[in-house]
Amino acid sequence: MYKIVFMRHGESTWNLENRFTGWTDVDLTEKGVAEAKAAGKVLKDEGYTFDLAYTSVLKRAIRTLWLTLDEMDMMYLPIKHDWRLNERHYGALQGLDKAETAAKYGDAQVLVWRRSYDTPPEPLAEDDERTSYNDPRYAGLPKSSIPLTECLKDTVARVMPAWDEEIAPAIRAGKKIIISAHGNSLRALIKMLDGISDSDIVGLNIPNGQPLVYELDADLKPIRHYYLGDPAAIAAAQAAVANQGKAK
Amino acid sequence: MYKIVFMRHGESTWNLENRFTGWTDVDLTEKGVAEAKAAGKVLKDEGYTFDLAYTSVLKRAIRTLWLTLDEMDMMYLPIKHDWRLNERHYGALQGLDKAETAAKYGDAQVLVWRRSYDTPPEPLAEDDERTSYNDPRYAGLPKSSIPLTECLKDTVARVMPAWDEEIAPAIRAGKKIIISAHGNSLRALIKMLDGISDSDIVGLNIPNGQPLVYELDADLKPIRHYYLGDPAAIAAAQAAVANQGKAK
Repeated sequence: MYKIVFMRHGESTWNLENRFTGWTDVDLTEKGVAEAKAAGKVLKDEGYTFDLAYTSVLKRAIRTLWLTLDEMDMMYLPIKHDWRLNERHYGALQGLDKAETAAKYGDAQVLVWRRSYDTPPEPLAEDDERTSYNDPRYAGLPKSSIPLTECLKDTVARVMPAWDEEIAPAIRAGKKIIISAHGNSLRALIKMLDGISDSDIVGLNIPNGQPLVYELDADLKPIRHYYLGDPAAIAAAQAAVANQGKAK
Repeated sequence: MYKIVFMRHGESTWNLENRFTGWTDVDLTEKGVAEAKAAGKVLKDEGYTFDLAYTSVLKRAIRTLWLTLDEMDMMYLPIKHDWRLNERHYGALQGLDKAETAAKYGDAQVLVWRRSYDTPPEPLAEDDERTSYNDPRYAGLPKSSIPLTECLKDTVARVMPAWDEEIAPAIRAGKKIIISAHGNSLRALIKMLDGISDSDIVGLNIPNGQPLVYELDADLKPIRHYYLGDPAAIAAAQAAVANQGKAK
């Protein structure tokens, strides 16, 4: 039997400001820092150890991982950065206030943009300064791989090769793995593992900064999963995520 | 022409306490944290960017690197941890106070232990709790690779394969590299690059937390080298290292 630990980054400044973030490289808030440290503490207290960590190229996930590993006294753990674990790209919505966007377009339209499986928001214009074309962290990628917008279906399509080519073989090789990533890249992985439908996956809310353990059988099929830590804190974190994007 | 940046970790708690550290996994002091951030700032201000970082498996070097990359807004940089970049193992001296050891054995004997090229201190006993045999970060190594003591010659012997097999090929492939390591693993690299004699290398003092740039030709032979940053701070840091281990 295998175990893998997923973790959504701690609260970010744009979670707090209620802005659409996507590939924007915002940092953690003080609360997010505390969440990441608490995650490291519970993992250490529960006796977890790892051989390898995966994360995105976005600092809110990387800092969450660093703080977690620091708390576990495992700063030496090999870390693989993979852009395919990035958050869903939010297209032209990146940087906009969620509540203002909801007030302007209505909760229903925002819910479509946030939670439709296959309807992406408007793309960024090619010459929009918010594109990632000139960001050195994507310099090795063909331009066609750098999104201007994504629906969750698109995110799933780019996350899955990272699982199939990198992560799953490492698990089968016996590596104990932690993945620090984002709400939608983790939805993609959980959708695949649990066989969740296109319509149901968009309603799955993953709380910030709470270690989520999946126990997998020899074929990497889930046996069970559970969050570590205080159940009340987890429920509160899930409710906070579900309420983002509603008009205030 | 290639450039590579070497950096000795910022001041550690045992630098401050004047203890022999070796493979003991002590953390940075507040001053060490500030040195690492300042190193990141000067690298950023001077326009340096990197494709790849190497560091040891010891947290004082890793934290120095993390703080440097954070300051440069390059947290996404791939980091390779290599135990062969660890500090020289200090054998049975690990944990002892340098000044007390000097007072007991005399400055001359301590200078031999610290600065002889080929005379190691007494080894740790096999059953000494200070050995690294049960440390998970070395679990993949044969026991014979885990030292119980080292002279600088031994350190050179294990650092050089990391250069030859990993770092030099990456430089030749065009990767811009930063190495965050330790006084003696950096001495090993500089000895090789500059062809410094066994007797002279032990007198080379590398200051904590100061980026050291080597410009290399197509054959990876040094053209010139220089520290970045404030010359007075660098001179003070070098003097501080030179004065360690003298009886007070």
